[in-house]
Amino acid sequence: MLRHDAGLYPPGVEPRDWGPDDVDERHQDPHASADLQGDVAKIFRAITKFEAIIRKRVVAFFLSGAGVITNSELMTPLRVAIVGFGTVGRSVARILIHGVSGLRLTRVFNRNVNRKRVDWVPASVSWTETIDDVFSPDVDVVVELVGGTDPAFEWMRRALSKGKSVVTANKQVMARHGLELFELARANGAQLGFEASVAGGIPVIRGIQEGLGGDELIRVQGVLNGTCNYILSEMASSVVSFETVLADAQARGYAEADPAVDLDGFDAQAKLAILSAVGLRRRVEPTTIPCRSIRGLVTADFDAARELGRAIRQVSVAERVKNGSGVRAAVGPAMVRLDSRLAQVAGSENVVVVDGVRGGQTAFVGQGAGGDPTAVAVVSDLLAIASGNSRMITHAFPVVGSDHRVVEMGAQPHYLRAAGGDEAERRLTEFGVVGAQRLDAVDNELLMVTDPCTTEAIEKSMNKLTNDEAVRVLAALPLVD
Amino acid sequence: MLRHDAGLYPPGVEPRDWGPDDVDERHQDPHASADLQGDVAKIFRAITKFEAIIRKRVVAFFLSGAGVITNSELMTPLRVAIVGFGTVGRSVARILIHGVSGLRLTRVFNRNVNRKRVDWVPASVSWTETIDDVFSPDVDVVVELVGGTDPAFEWMRRALSKGKSVVTANKQVMARHGLELFELARANGAQLGFEASVAGGIPVIRGIQEGLGGDELIRVQGVLNGTCNYILSEMASSVVSFETVLADAQARGYAEADPAVDLDGFDAQAKLAILSAVGLRRRVEPTTIPCRSIRGLVTADFDAARELGRAIRQVSVAERVKNGSGVRAAVGPAMVRLDSRLAQVAGSENVVVVDGVRGGQTAFVGQGAGGDPTAVAVVSDLLAIASGNSRMITHAFPVVGSDHRVVEMGAQPHYLRAAGGDEAERRLTEFGVVGAQRLDAVDNELLMVTDPCTTEAIEKSMNKLTNDEAVRVLAALPLVD
Repeated sequence: MLRHDAGLYPPGVEPRDWGPDDVDERHQDPHASADLQGDVAKIFRAITKFEAIIRKRVVAFFLSGAGVITNSELMTPLRVAIVGFGTVGRSVARILIHGVSGLRLTRVFNRNVNRKRVDWVPASVSWTETIDDVFSPDVDVVVELVGGTDPAFEWMRRALSKGKSVVTANKQVMARHGLELFELARANGAQLGFEASVAGGIPVIRGIQEGLGGDELIRVQGVLNGTCNYILSEMASSVVSFETVLADAQARGYAEADPAVDLDGFDAQAKLAILSAVGLRRRVEPTTIPCRSIRGLVTADFDAARELGRAIRQVSVAERVKNGSGVRAAVGPAMVRLDSRLAQVAGSENVVVVDGVRGGQTAFVGQGAGGDPTAVAVVSDLLAIASGNSRMITHAFPVVGSDHRVVEMGAQPHYLRAAGGDEAERRLTEFGVVGAQRLDAVDNELLMVTDPCTTEAIEKSMNKLTNDEAVRVLAALPLVD
Repeated sequence: MLRHDAGLYPPGVEPRDWGPDDVDERHQDPHASADLQGDVAKIFRAITKFEAIIRKRVVAFFLSGAGVITNSELMTPLRVAIVGFGTVGRSVARILIHGVSGLRLTRVFNRNVNRKRVDWVPASVSWTETIDDVFSPDVDVVVELVGGTDPAFEWMRRALSKGKSVVTANKQVMARHGLELFELARANGAQLGFEASVAGGIPVIRGIQEGLGGDELIRVQGVLNGTCNYILSEMASSVVSFETVLADAQARGYAEADPAVDLDGFDAQAKLAILSAVGLRRRVEPTTIPCRSIRGLVTADFDAARELGRAIRQVSVAERVKNGSGVRAAVGPAMVRLDSRLAQVAGSENVVVVDGVRGGQTAFVGQGAGGDPTAVAVVSDLLAIASGNSRMITHAFPVVGSDHRVVEMGAQPHYLRAAGGDEAERRLTEFGVVGAQRLDAVDNELLMVTDPCTTEAIEKSMNKLTNDEAVRVLAALPLVD
């Protein structure tokens, strides 16, 4: 055991015993033995980096004369490469060029980079369309903003493998391959920041993980897709069809030419998988979260919502299964109370609401998309890495154990619209879907609120009903508190 | 300059140059020279601690074989002493005893400790009513939960002076003496966590400071006092007098026997000063923030709010003065739009809304008080310290420059109730307070919304008017967006 000679120290200074037997074995890295078998270059690289940090700390220690030294005080600025110079990339560049202590933009990558060049980027920044340039030794952090899985995932792996930290807004890659990336980051002494991948500028990853670190979260809910929220808000406030609002949203640039990822829930699905990992500490395979589209909603549904004192939102929810493994999760349109946090977001705003066993309910509300808000999340991650404050980023995902299975949400009352009136209700009852309240309907439709049942039960009955075109379920939205 | 011999390293490993001339001088500790002249024991203590950390890192490095090592993996659990075993103290103890990796409760201090003993605290925890026990070498972090300035401030100073980190829920001490405590923490290599001092369980300090670190905040608004919010909510929903609601709140334990600190704004004042320092990066002397009491509001004011589509909240606001130093700040009752974030908190909930130049508006909502939510904030701070993730905690306050002066809020429309009807309006107009909209009033009162003016202008006119008891301003609430 290493031990200080107490005689060396002036009175009142108690040298503490930090020998190897003090290291709590429960906290040892579970991947340690695998890493020890890793290649020599990797270990050497880590040692080099580690030695450099210690040397620098010693130098800075004597320069500052104090015991507390932040990395931002020690280090030359982190050299940042932006990969993908779209809306968010440009916003990040603008912030970095405006001057952020500890950060320096050195490279910008984009395909056909010449058409992306702008005159406000100083000459010291080099433009490239060769991705290999980004992995050169003069880059410390790669900001990945190309989106999509391919080739973004591969590029992030390459960066981390070379010991470069990665900051990303890529929800798809984080949701599907987060575990692998975190393991790669740990093995290579790199950091991985992904605040921007969920809810844009709202600091929900950091808020959940650090600010609520002392709590145990049991549920995460959110309105996570701005495009859906815009469309649903518009439909609620004006008597226009889904198709008209969608076309308008596309014309304004709020919706993609192919809006499926937004409308059918796959965007929110990936974000919810990330929130489940970070908040509930349970990883799930994102594609196993059931998604229901907001397509097919009509004016009558919004009228019914108003009648019920509710609003329609695309709601994402994930709950820990009590007393066992697994996560109850779903993404899709739901009716929320007008005074609920989920209702109180307009247009492209996002909200994330978490329930903790001790802290109760906490909500984070703000701009869920857009270049500048998302860039704030990216730069905040960069600052955390620059200040050495990013260890929790690397530990954001639970990296032990296998994925949790996703199970169906529990029984909830549903708003239900069906063709076939009384006949529809009679048949639904046969499938165990029982009406609790009839609402006014036009033509031969059935509008009602059901007794609590699962959305799946309604969908099953719907499958049977579709033999008869005249009798079928057209919309089924859970009533969420 | 120190330089690696490149030949020592395998291909692909680039030793970086971290010599002393790489240390960016702009980031040097401004207190360095003062500290160098500090006493020898202090420097020796810092060196001891620093050496121990390095030694431990080296040991753990070879144990884990990876470059990324968190302090929680390295260290024996942080030994925590709770000072003040009230509601929050008990909640913190319960969480720690339930088991939090990296944290161990070792001591509980309280005056007359015997009447505080509970059987669910294990025998390994020692109870004491001697404060000196808390500063003994077997305590790493002191959790200060006694509240008030005296003796809490002195105890926090003693802990930090001995190199012990402090986690506190004490808004008064943080607001008044935060700067001194941070300097003491830095000089002694200790950390100072204060998430619990503002908005209870809502992770607003961490959210603003780290999650929005990449933004520049220009305004912070909040509903920060649960007692006021409870009273105002009750008065809005039932036709009972202020006195009745207050007595009820006191009976239920929502309000103190001496409610002045809550009602007259001094509680929120301290919290707002902390938010100004952390969010706007401008420290202010808390007592210079003008406070206006919620006492004196009557049913007619709530009726008028309803007529105007608004709610009455105790609002705290601080804004950077544009293009100059200074902070516009105020605490007091205001009328807020029903659909605003400030209106959407019920009972003892708190909300903090921040405006950033890039990220737009972000809101944090949750439980602003209570043992368990506040304990979550305390434990989150403890975890940050345990994981070595707390450097930003120490840098939370701007520790350079002097306090910013607090200046009056800009002109806003006000809701105004005055005795003396037309005569009151005529006289107010003489003082530049001009009515824009008359509201229905009973008796000989005047209820109106003014053109934009400062609250101070109304108060000045009020001072002149009070010569005449029959003609005086009884309530003046700014209309906040």
